[in-house]
Amino acid sequence: MTDQQVVRPLPISGFPEWLPEVRLVELQWLDLIRQTFERYGFCSIETPAAEALDVLLAKGETSQEVYTLRRLQADAADNSDARLGLHFDLTVPFARYAAAHLNDLVFPFKRYQIQRVWRGERPQEGRYREFTQCDIDVINTDQVPLQFDAELPRIVHEILTSLNLPAWSISINNRKVLQGFYEGLGISDPLEVIRIADKIDKIGAEGVGKLLASELGLTTGQVTACLDLAQLRGTDTSIIGQITRLGVSSAVLSEGLDELAFVLDSLSDLPAGSIVADLSIARGLAYYTGTVYEGKFTGWPGYGSICSGGRYDNLAGSFVRRSLPGIGMSIGLTRIFAKLVAEGILRTGPSCPSDVLVVVPSDQRRPQAAATAAELRTRGLNTELYHQADKIARQIRYASRKGIPFVWFPPFEDGKPHEVKDMATGEQSPADPRTWQRA
Amino acid sequence: MTDQQVVRPLPISGFPEWLPEVRLVELQWLDLIRQTFERYGFCSIETPAAEALDVLLAKGETSQEVYTLRRLQADAADNSDARLGLHFDLTVPFARYAAAHLNDLVFPFKRYQIQRVWRGERPQEGRYREFTQCDIDVINTDQVPLQFDAELPRIVHEILTSLNLPAWSISINNRKVLQGFYEGLGISDPLEVIRIADKIDKIGAEGVGKLLASELGLTTGQVTACLDLAQLRGTDTSIIGQITRLGVSSAVLSEGLDELAFVLDSLSDLPAGSIVADLSIARGLAYYTGTVYEGKFTGWPGYGSICSGGRYDNLAGSFVRRSLPGIGMSIGLTRIFAKLVAEGILRTGPSCPSDVLVVVPSDQRRPQAAATAAELRTRGLNTELYHQADKIARQIRYASRKGIPFVWFPPFEDGKPHEVKDMATGEQSPADPRTWQRA
Repeated sequence: MTDQQVVRPLPISGFPEWLPEVRLVELQWLDLIRQTFERYGFCSIETPAAEALDVLLAKGETSQEVYTLRRLQADAADNSDARLGLHFDLTVPFARYAAAHLNDLVFPFKRYQIQRVWRGERPQEGRYREFTQCDIDVINTDQVPLQFDAELPRIVHEILTSLNLPAWSISINNRKVLQGFYEGLGISDPLEVIRIADKIDKIGAEGVGKLLASELGLTTGQVTACLDLAQLRGTDTSIIGQITRLGVSSAVLSEGLDELAFVLDSLSDLPAGSIVADLSIARGLAYYTGTVYEGKFTGWPGYGSICSGGRYDNLAGSFVRRSLPGIGMSIGLTRIFAKLVAEGILRTGPSCPSDVLVVVPSDQRRPQAAATAAELRTRGLNTELYHQADKIARQIRYASRKGIPFVWFPPFEDGKPHEVKDMATGEQSPADPRTWQRA
Repeated sequence: MTDQQVVRPLPISGFPEWLPEVRLVELQWLDLIRQTFERYGFCSIETPAAEALDVLLAKGETSQEVYTLRRLQADAADNSDARLGLHFDLTVPFARYAAAHLNDLVFPFKRYQIQRVWRGERPQEGRYREFTQCDIDVINTDQVPLQFDAELPRIVHEILTSLNLPAWSISINNRKVLQGFYEGLGISDPLEVIRIADKIDKIGAEGVGKLLASELGLTTGQVTACLDLAQLRGTDTSIIGQITRLGVSSAVLSEGLDELAFVLDSLSDLPAGSIVADLSIARGLAYYTGTVYEGKFTGWPGYGSICSGGRYDNLAGSFVRRSLPGIGMSIGLTRIFAKLVAEGILRTGPSCPSDVLVVVPSDQRRPQAAATAAELRTRGLNTELYHQADKIARQIRYASRKGIPFVWFPPFEDGKPHEVKDMATGEQSPADPRTWQRA
């Protein structure tokens, strides 16, 4: 016991941390996500937590959210670390990585990346300052085949299904459909319309209509057509007919409709309603150029997206003098996981990975108990040796508190058999450590 | 192609990143380390990358190495983030975590923690600014059983053995032996002797002897005895006799010798020479109070430690008004891994996790190829569907460049069988996607 001042031991707001039984579930999620990405042949990469600031800011976006690094003891003259920042997503570092290792990668380069990212935001529900994202992208040295526009949402769909979440759906749209439609209406700057139409979730159709008229000077006819398009939804390729019936046409629109039809058709085997064509989805980021995705919890529409992504033409253009188009999706692991924790609907189990606790009856019998534990471990069972000779009741209580399903009793005297107690049933029976199987 | 300035896409010095085929091996290492920790029943926790600075500096150590965080757009008046720093090890965050969740954990609390840590150091061989550590610790609300002093090096030994590294050994010592020995010599401040004796690697026995005389005023007899002790080595409990034959005695020394004997005796089944009692090992950190560990590559003695740790009495004392003693070891994953990469002795394989590439013969045959890939995935095979209809030779070349071991040909016309090509042997034979097994 010292008399020094006690520092409050709480984690910082916006930087979540979990108890062991919650972390154990998070690990299962991470394993499942990784396994599914690998099932489709995507390889793992990791990039440093920090990048040069000019890399992070090459696209000029979200600059206000970046955490910069500085050594605590740096003197004023030493500015060498002042140009480092923590990455705020995994897309920019991936583009930098692909450009850096261009000659050592096989293209199309298919990678997944599961890492923490940091944003210097004010914490609020669903917003963290440190959180884990699970990204999957394909990048290529020439065009990226359309097949990936359908494969990526299929992979994410498979993961979200396996995680056994509250109801969700993935919305799909295509920026070429929006851009081509606006062009067909004779609007000169379609990107500006996309920027404003993207606010429909927040300000409603009426609000968007007013901005389109006041800010961009659109005619009443143009505004009406834009809002008609934004209100279209469909779960299959019949959406294409709905769009063409609005009577607008352009080359870019046709191309976008073909792509959208291909994606919807490729995913038509998935459960009804889990994939939705939603013409209001634009994804604000300027770099998307084709298919875009956005997944949400159906029951918590205001909660924000749980996965998102899209096709981009030249994200790595800041780092290398050639075009590297790509397509990607990101699963907001912490966003999803923390919501389930907050709602109290995440099911947790034991607080440790142990299958068996081996009892230490006495100091004299410790070597035999240790040998028993070693034997069980060799056979792939996660096995704790109790940490000291102690009352048996106390050792059983320890197993019970940690949720360890089996307690193993080595013989208390020579010639007696080993016994194992099933903590769920209370049943205790003789067992051989060389052959026993967990039921 | 834009005409904007190209930003150099290299990662920052001291922040390592790996190509996919190297990352794949790192992932196998991480899996093996995690699996071994869990095999002994230790649970996973993770703590935030950032802690309050007063938490990081509660022990007053390594303050010059801490990276502090600041929002890029923070105005001068807003100082709210100025008190955050990236963790420089996993021990301090673990102590903070244990104190924060004291009432929600089962003690003795046995956890592992595999995370990146950051130090604002000048990069040099074996020193990184971002690196991954794999820590395993036990912390308790009263005394920590001696059994863990033997269990932790056993676990680390098992891991280092499985990683198939160049020759290494783990040195073990006990601070009570050192402290008790110095006390028995009548030295008033044993910790100061430990601090100086710890430099024996760098300045040699003679250098240490000079400092002991000049800085602490030790007599020639005391200096000789200290150096005699520091030069003792042994691979079994016979080391205890060597120490007692130096003719020094004290209560603390006896206690330390009992503990050291217990640990060496418990580990006597491990291969000869892999565990070494080394009386020169002190581990500089002030908080160690009993058993200490330090592992090194035998062939690279100057490279620094590849694992280390020890017993501490009250690491969490800064965060909670009670004593939380513990014992832990840390494996320097990046330190080990990067050395093997640098020496060119890390064996890498394919650059992706795929077992099979399914060929897409034509756009018409794509649905059948996709269904074949889906079938193989259902059966647990990591399967890529080639990304477009293309020349067969090009598809095979893609598999070859990525190291994918099997190429699958769905029927090119109705009524023909599927075939699979073993890329290692070149052999091609009929196969059924519902039953085929990887050889």
